[in-house]
Amino acid sequence: MSETRAINFGAGPSALPQSVLEEAARGLLNFAGTGIGIAEISHRSKEFAAFLAEVEELIREQLNVPSTHTILFTQGGGTAQFSAIVLNLLARHRLLHPDLKDEERIMDYVITGTWSKNAAQEAGRLGGAKINIAADARVTSSDGKSFDNIPPHDAYKFSQSPALIYYCENETVNGVQFSHDQQAPESFPFHLLPKDALLPLVADYSSSFMSRPIPRLADHAVIYAGAQKNVGPAGLTIIIVRKDCIVDVDAAAKLGAAPVPIGLAYKSFAEQKSMPNTPPVFSLYVSGLVLRRSKALGGVSYYEAVNQRKKDKVYAVLGDGEKLGLLKGYVKRGSGSWMNIVFEVLGEGTEARFLAGAEAKGMKSLKGHRSVGGIRVSLYNAITEEQTDQLVAYIRHFLAEETVTSNS
Amino acid sequence: MSETRAINFGAGPSALPQSVLEEAARGLLNFAGTGIGIAEISHRSKEFAAFLAEVEELIREQLNVPSTHTILFTQGGGTAQFSAIVLNLLARHRLLHPDLKDEERIMDYVITGTWSKNAAQEAGRLGGAKINIAADARVTSSDGKSFDNIPPHDAYKFSQSPALIYYCENETVNGVQFSHDQQAPESFPFHLLPKDALLPLVADYSSSFMSRPIPRLADHAVIYAGAQKNVGPAGLTIIIVRKDCIVDVDAAAKLGAAPVPIGLAYKSFAEQKSMPNTPPVFSLYVSGLVLRRSKALGGVSYYEAVNQRKKDKVYAVLGDGEKLGLLKGYVKRGSGSWMNIVFEVLGEGTEARFLAGAEAKGMKSLKGHRSVGGIRVSLYNAITEEQTDQLVAYIRHFLAEETVTSNS
Repeated sequence: MSETRAINFGAGPSALPQSVLEEAARGLLNFAGTGIGIAEISHRSKEFAAFLAEVEELIREQLNVPSTHTILFTQGGGTAQFSAIVLNLLARHRLLHPDLKDEERIMDYVITGTWSKNAAQEAGRLGGAKINIAADARVTSSDGKSFDNIPPHDAYKFSQSPALIYYCENETVNGVQFSHDQQAPESFPFHLLPKDALLPLVADYSSSFMSRPIPRLADHAVIYAGAQKNVGPAGLTIIIVRKDCIVDVDAAAKLGAAPVPIGLAYKSFAEQKSMPNTPPVFSLYVSGLVLRRSKALGGVSYYEAVNQRKKDKVYAVLGDGEKLGLLKGYVKRGSGSWMNIVFEVLGEGTEARFLAGAEAKGMKSLKGHRSVGGIRVSLYNAITEEQTDQLVAYIRHFLAEETVTSNS
Repeated sequence: MSETRAINFGAGPSALPQSVLEEAARGLLNFAGTGIGIAEISHRSKEFAAFLAEVEELIREQLNVPSTHTILFTQGGGTAQFSAIVLNLLARHRLLHPDLKDEERIMDYVITGTWSKNAAQEAGRLGGAKINIAADARVTSSDGKSFDNIPPHDAYKFSQSPALIYYCENETVNGVQFSHDQQAPESFPFHLLPKDALLPLVADYSSSFMSRPIPRLADHAVIYAGAQKNVGPAGLTIIIVRKDCIVDVDAAAKLGAAPVPIGLAYKSFAEQKSMPNTPPVFSLYVSGLVLRRSKALGGVSYYEAVNQRKKDKVYAVLGDGEKLGLLKGYVKRGSGSWMNIVFEVLGEGTEARFLAGAEAKGMKSLKGHRSVGGIRVSLYNAITEEQTDQLVAYIRHFLAEETVTSNS
């Protein structure tokens, strides 16, 4: 069966380990020996409850999530969380500071790409506070308008006592990512944040979750991730919330905060073990299988090492292609994502040849996001080092061919 | 493989056709010949776009959805829709009647069970209008407090020009359902509704969607259903919306309506073919396979006939058990659901014997909802007539055994 499988470099939904898919296929007909398939079994059954508890524990253990934080599972993807973080954290701020006017509440947004821009836009739609753009990568970009960099630390201006501080750790569309090396100038500037033991710091980890350890996880109020990159099928959102951010939104509404739709209120999920209503059972199942496998392989440290080698190899061949004038990376070095590597293939018709050649070798979904164009190579956990080597070999071969052609 | 499969009478997530599960298992590894599994493929791929268009068409065709209505796919289940219907229809009402005060806007709720009670509670949480309980089945119940009936037509009091009129067609927990026979006293009283060509009529069809035709579908503003009963795995919500209810929620917010979180705004889904963000791809896939199969069998008319026979058989044996004093239906006859049949097994320890005996014959998930107790038999589309016969035979045998025991 493996011969017919493509190598899927897509940005999400994206590749899953074949062994997991084979186990999930069996689970579809019979889950945990119940004679009932995983998509059919009651979410209130003891078998599913045990599985869900295990999924939570697999995340807690591998990411070292402290007991100060709760892990929630919801639906709606990062987009639903764009709204949920604002509504829940403004409710929290209202309870802490009931007398402030809306214009005295501030939400800090760090904008480094398409997704953080969208998140800030949603905050603006919902209102209830002023938005401070704490940093904008377009300002520090090469051309004044592109999301091609992580801003240097001196470009940030955080507010004194914000209701929320937001950043997107990895920008899937643009291919920029904060460094997890706290010494690197492209790291998130934790040291510049207001001094507060209970920082309202929110991070969108959708496309890098479980790919390497999360720096200063315990200092975050909310970390969320759609499952459909490194973890599982679309339809599941994983949220790590510090417990002081799970607030009584109805009490806050009585003080004037915006009412929070029940499906976006962290409290309803926390109180009912992520099941105020039917959860996305199959997505949770596959995610659990992926996380079991990840643990067996050595957890996020294992993936950190593998993913580092994978991205080093691709950036190396990209560098070679740049020297030959055939490729052009979209992102400043140092700001480049481990997960999504975006570049152009220069010359008329060359990109189409690149894609067709890759396709002929069973390498798919390499076309860049429609808003950016070019090529995007996504190297999520399920892409093996061997598959990465195949891609790199293909790119080397392509560069050699093109060089011969252009010299002939 | 089929020998190991249980007969799953659960209320949802619930049984799916084995042939569909087998096809889905293959699709997990290779979707539409792409070499990429369905949980891995980009939702923007042409293969998935074609599949999604087919899913929509399968619903439109089988339910006869007119061109006045759009079909949307979202996440979050009925619970997310409890909020979405209020926010979108209050935005619509604001645009139609910008000068009304909140207390002059009215939402009519018909309460017939747990889910409609929860829906009305969410409307109360969100505010923005007064709630009129147009009918409450507890008032017309046998004991003044139970959800055991569909109120008679003279029990309804609708408002003149409400922003929303809500009912839940089938109450999964309580086992009451509106009759689809418009002559029956237990039908929904369409003739009592305010005269308006564009009625803001909302129906929760979560647990009866696709089980039989929807009466007066075209007169509804919104019909929604979680997939996880008759259609597919949990994690997908299907919404049929009349186009005048897909409104510019931001324009309404400028006039004072509550801002609508982007993931709950019908407009964002309608404008982007249900993909403002990544949809629940696998749930959509399995739902599509189920709907293809349904069409091949003859569509909702086929299921109407089969489901009628199935429920007639179960209600018949329930009637026999009642005559023997061994069973007791929870619901008034005429108000009983086709999909969820709720009853008690009388006598100390008898219910436990009933469940154990069923389990021994591979019949599972018959325990009633924790809030009601007793037995609940769910007869969704995937439960065959033959499986229903097996259950009925078991109940007959059980009644005979118990009669012998109590007579000896």
